Amino acid sequence: MSQQRTIRLSLQQHTSTVYVLGTEISIDIRGSAPKDATSFDVRGTPDVDVYIVHNPQVAKVRISYYGQDGGPPMHRAMLYLTCVDISLDADTTRSGAAKRKTADKREWTWGPDGQGAILLVNCDRDDPKSSDMDNMDFCVRSYADLRDMSCMILRTQGPDAIFDDHKLVLHISVSDADKVGVFHARGDDILHQYEHVLGSDELSYIVDRPSGQEEDTFYVEGLAFPDADFTGLVSFHVTLLDVPVENLPETPIFTDTVVFHMAPWIMTPNTQRPQEVFVCSMSDNADFVEAVSELTRKARCKLTVCPEVENRNDRWIQDEMEFGYVQAPHKTFPVVFDSPRDGKLQDFPFKSILGPDFGYVTREPSNEKVSSLDSFGNLEVSPPVTVKGKEYPLGRILIGSSFPRIGGRRMTKAVRDFLYAQKVQAPVELYSDWLSVGHVDEFLSFVPAPGRQGFQLLLASPSACYKLFREKQEEGYGEARLFEELETVTTTTIDEILANETLRRENDYVQSCIDWNRDILKQELGLSEKDIIDLPQLFTVIKKEASAFFPDMVNMIVLGKHLGIPKPFGPMVDGRCCLEEKVRSLLEPLGLTCTFINDFFTYHTLLGEVHCGTNVRRKPFSFKWWNMIP
Amino acid sequence: MSQQRTIRLSLQQHTSTVYVLGTEISIDIRGSAPKDATSFDVRGTPDVDVYIVHNPQVAKVRISYYGQDGGPPMHRAMLYLTCVDISLDADTTRSGAAKRKTADKREWTWGPDGQGAILLVNCDRDDPKSSDMDNMDFCVRSYADLRDMSCMILRTQGPDAIFDDHKLVLHISVSDADKVGVFHARGDDILHQYEHVLGSDELSYIVDRPSGQEEDTFYVEGLAFPDADFTGLVSFHVTLLDVPVENLPETPIFTDTVVFHMAPWIMTPNTQRPQEVFVCSMSDNADFVEAVSELTRKARCKLTVCPEVENRNDRWIQDEMEFGYVQAPHKTFPVVFDSPRDGKLQDFPFKSILGPDFGYVTREPSNEKVSSLDSFGNLEVSPPVTVKGKEYPLGRILIGSSFPRIGGRRMTKAVRDFLYAQKVQAPVELYSDWLSVGHVDEFLSFVPAPGRQGFQLLLASPSACYKLFREKQEEGYGEARLFEELETVTTTTIDEILANETLRRENDYVQSCIDWNRDILKQELGLSEKDIIDLPQLFTVIKKEASAFFPDMVNMIVLGKHLGIPKPFGPMVDGRCCLEEKVRSLLEPLGLTCTFINDFFTYHTLLGEVHCGTNVRRKPFSFKWWNMIP
Repeated sequence: MSQQRTIRLSLQQHTSTVYVLGTEISIDIRGSAPKDATSFDVRGTPDVDVYIVHNPQVAKVRISYYGQDGGPPMHRAMLYLTCVDISLDADTTRSGAAKRKTADKREWTWGPDGQGAILLVNCDRDDPKSSDMDNMDFCVRSYADLRDMSCMILRTQGPDAIFDDHKLVLHISVSDADKVGVFHARGDDILHQYEHVLGSDELSYIVDRPSGQEEDTFYVEGLAFPDADFTGLVSFHVTLLDVPVENLPETPIFTDTVVFHMAPWIMTPNTQRPQEVFVCSMSDNADFVEAVSELTRKARCKLTVCPEVENRNDRWIQDEMEFGYVQAPHKTFPVVFDSPRDGKLQDFPFKSILGPDFGYVTREPSNEKVSSLDSFGNLEVSPPVTVKGKEYPLGRILIGSSFPRIGGRRMTKAVRDFLYAQKVQAPVELYSDWLSVGHVDEFLSFVPAPGRQGFQLLLASPSACYKLFREKQEEGYGEARLFEELETVTTTTIDEILANETLRRENDYVQSCIDWNRDILKQELGLSEKDIIDLPQLFTVIKKEASAFFPDMVNMIVLGKHLGIPKPFGPMVDGRCCLEEKVRSLLEPLGLTCTFINDFFTYHTLLGEVHCGTNVRRKPFSFKWWNMIP
Repeated sequence: MSQQRTIRLSLQQHTSTVYVLGTEISIDIRGSAPKDATSFDVRGTPDVDVYIVHNPQVAKVRISYYGQDGGPPMHRAMLYLTCVDISLDADTTRSGAAKRKTADKREWTWGPDGQGAILLVNCDRDDPKSSDMDNMDFCVRSYADLRDMSCMILRTQGPDAIFDDHKLVLHISVSDADKVGVFHARGDDILHQYEHVLGSDELSYIVDRPSGQEEDTFYVEGLAFPDADFTGLVSFHVTLLDVPVENLPETPIFTDTVVFHMAPWIMTPNTQRPQEVFVCSMSDNADFVEAVSELTRKARCKLTVCPEVENRNDRWIQDEMEFGYVQAPHKTFPVVFDSPRDGKLQDFPFKSILGPDFGYVTREPSNEKVSSLDSFGNLEVSPPVTVKGKEYPLGRILIGSSFPRIGGRRMTKAVRDFLYAQKVQAPVELYSDWLSVGHVDEFLSFVPAPGRQGFQLLLASPSACYKLFREKQEEGYGEARLFEELETVTTTTIDEILANETLRRENDYVQSCIDWNRDILKQELGLSEKDIIDLPQLFTVIKKEASAFFPDMVNMIVLGKHLGIPKPFGPMVDGRCCLEEKVRSLLEPLGLTCTFINDFFTYHTLLGEVHCGTNVRRKPFSFKWWNMIP
């Protein structure tokens, strides 16, 4: 429906007004009719379409009123129109460039047939000399900075006199003002002349239109990600104001609006190609770093070692941050989500990851205590899935929470709200509070695999371990010892493990906790039993909290087909670890290669494993988020 | 999809478990198979349906494993099931009583085919002795209090021994805990024995099930209306917990969930039958009160006069509060929304309106300044409308705001957020900041009328007034005087008014402001010109702010077909006020009766009129809000 504007005519004097192309002017003919008029006709100059409501015929805009006697017109009302064309345009077709479009720019819709422009949170730091993110200042520092912004074009065609006599205002609402910054391109692309015109305290900007200039270019940057109190939609308006004689306020003639959606922060699952692996170098873990480095070489991706001076003896780089990305039709860049965990690694994401075309975001709870469940080993994402017909082409976020029971630890609301608000990877809350550390990566992982789903879900399984050990016992290997290769660790035999009733009860309990998650995962990811592989694993329970009894194999690093798995130091059968053999037999048929990495003293005994001690930046999805329907 | 639960069997010992009716148990047959088993069969006792996945045939649950040689079974695994039935039920069919239903109680859906239970904010004060609303304490004071709550029934069937060995927990999430209160019906309906078991700090409640008791009744009250941070949905869960041997935590066996939607606060338009009229008695307005009283008698509704001791010389009872109601299938009651305006009337809604089956709600901005736009003369609601095929069966809320221009006054976010969050009367923001007082009731009203829409929109119209005065001038009444009947007011003739160029310009400006609203109203309420009546009205503009030049006739009270209209004191033509005559000629053909009430010195000169000085409680809609699709 075109914008309508009511104009009133007078029999005493001619009326002049501005007409904005694409709108409709509605004239109240009866309202201005002389008392005794019984009929009228309406004429317009060529190219003016006149529709008479109730008698819809195209006529032309002089209105003549006739008296009863049918003589010459009693009165005439004249309306002089001066036509201008005003339009605020952006890349509403998601093509990569701002386009003039007639469709309703106030609507933003999802899906392959959707429309509406997209904005990036300009949260990278293109200028290495800058102390903060690009969107924290009010200037355009470089073309790199500019390329992270979305273009918005104000088109104004018509006689200069009209624009001289009227006011053209670009404006935003108070609630949107802290979400965006707008720069006015000025002075033949001389960046330092670009002026910050909207955002923060600036709610409106009077556009000074030089004579004959029919296009003004603005650049828009995002300041805030979608969150509990922000849907992600931001509207910009341009209004043409009539400037009346003094002492009266201005009145609007026409408003055009364009809506942008802030690009959400998107996580990448294990099935996405790895691009860069992060690991901390400590005084005690040279072998581990070398093993990860070797695996990285095989997977042909970059390795970044966080040195001791930066990690300050904190090896849990998985827990400190999560890599994701933001995407608009014109630009895509990775963004690191800094966890509220804040161990000794806390400065690393901001100081060392944030940089040119590498953004940064964090969330801190305002009045909640941060728990171990806020570490990002407790934040994973599934590969793309379809659940009862509903598609999740970017997968679903998985976070560990407390149990449908009484109290317990839960990820802080600030982080959960952020994750839910991104909308495109609808989170699933699992139950991880049964674990001492409490992270979902202690009992699940995903690996690429052939077949319908393109992946298999790996779950840690005490049942599978007992079954394996019983088989080995029956085969006569009951005397085989766990941890035999580790000189300083107390060993234990398969027979002893199978005879240990306390351990058995603890693992029955752990199995029931993992099974509870298995049932949720099957339901929320649309999986069946054949999409799941059980990896043999034992746990112990101390003070009602569980932790891995031997290195937790599911806590692996997945680099394409190359898996770096915690070396379990299981019972040696015929000179080979029967746990490693079992895992190989489950995973190698999927085309995966298993590398068992010794993390025993450097990670395992500190309650973490290979996955906890590494982090991976992966390739963004080829699927564009705006093509999904959340 | 039924709730699934994974159970693991053992060849060494029989497994016993609880089975909850309506769920599925999934058994991993391969996981417990002996090493050399090559085939198996499964048997169950009668009435146990066994489905073998991959070979889906109903069988019966003893699992026998066979070796290669096909001899007798190598091993047997036995699963003993004890069946219980657990269900948390509420009035999910919206019939007025809690019903057992198999549909997914976790889904709450809108519309005539929708399902899901409904909860009322228990914001009335059934006990006159109580100092606060019923939901501010932790006890059930009376059956009246109880009838405002929704019933929730926990059904538990099965052997007592199972419930003795397990734990049954009723629980809610932290985010829902401050939205509800739950009472456990106890002791044969003796109210003081009803125990507050969930809400505020109480997140879970262990249900102590006496032997053989198969039903527990709970009563649920709402504490909070939907708002920016609360969708209105609240979930209750019951979980059956397995209590393992000491030193291990409990594990869940089964959870049932039921979702309630908090009833929204609903406004009533002028087209709803009036039930009670409110007016303030002042030292100077006895005639006004008498006129309103007379009109109320004609309309056969109750009159409540707020005495001076309560109004403390504040006559603007329209601005202090807005009447609405809440509705659930089992109960409906009115709720007064107390404005953040807070004049001398500020205590009146809480002290005098809140009472038995009369609820109360308010919103105060936390860090925003309250402006005149926060008075509820600036909060109206349209009759039911259909806009481009979208139905608003409860109408749309209309609030006045500032202009798409620079800054200006706007209704405070706390109030706007509340109004938007109710969802069922999607608000439209109009432009009222051009007025000195800035209320939408200064330029619009709705009256019942025959025809398609069932109403007409009345708009104040300077154009219509100029047209009328010009006609009267042409008829020879140019000397007729405005305000002639008022002894102490300076009079002015039609000729003088028509010759006053400043007044003309001011009214052209006012007309353009009202026209801007006219265009929004046509678009957002789906109206055409024939749904609108222009009432002649002039304004003056002082310091860029407009106010009515003579009593603002659109600011009327509408009691069914009886209209109480501010007496305009217009020019007398043939002994009759030509403004009154004009208004009668426009409205009486619709079957309405016009009573012109003198409010000149008691309201008009204080910048308000009849509508501002009255308030009306109306009959709730017969249409149930849950049957709409917002």
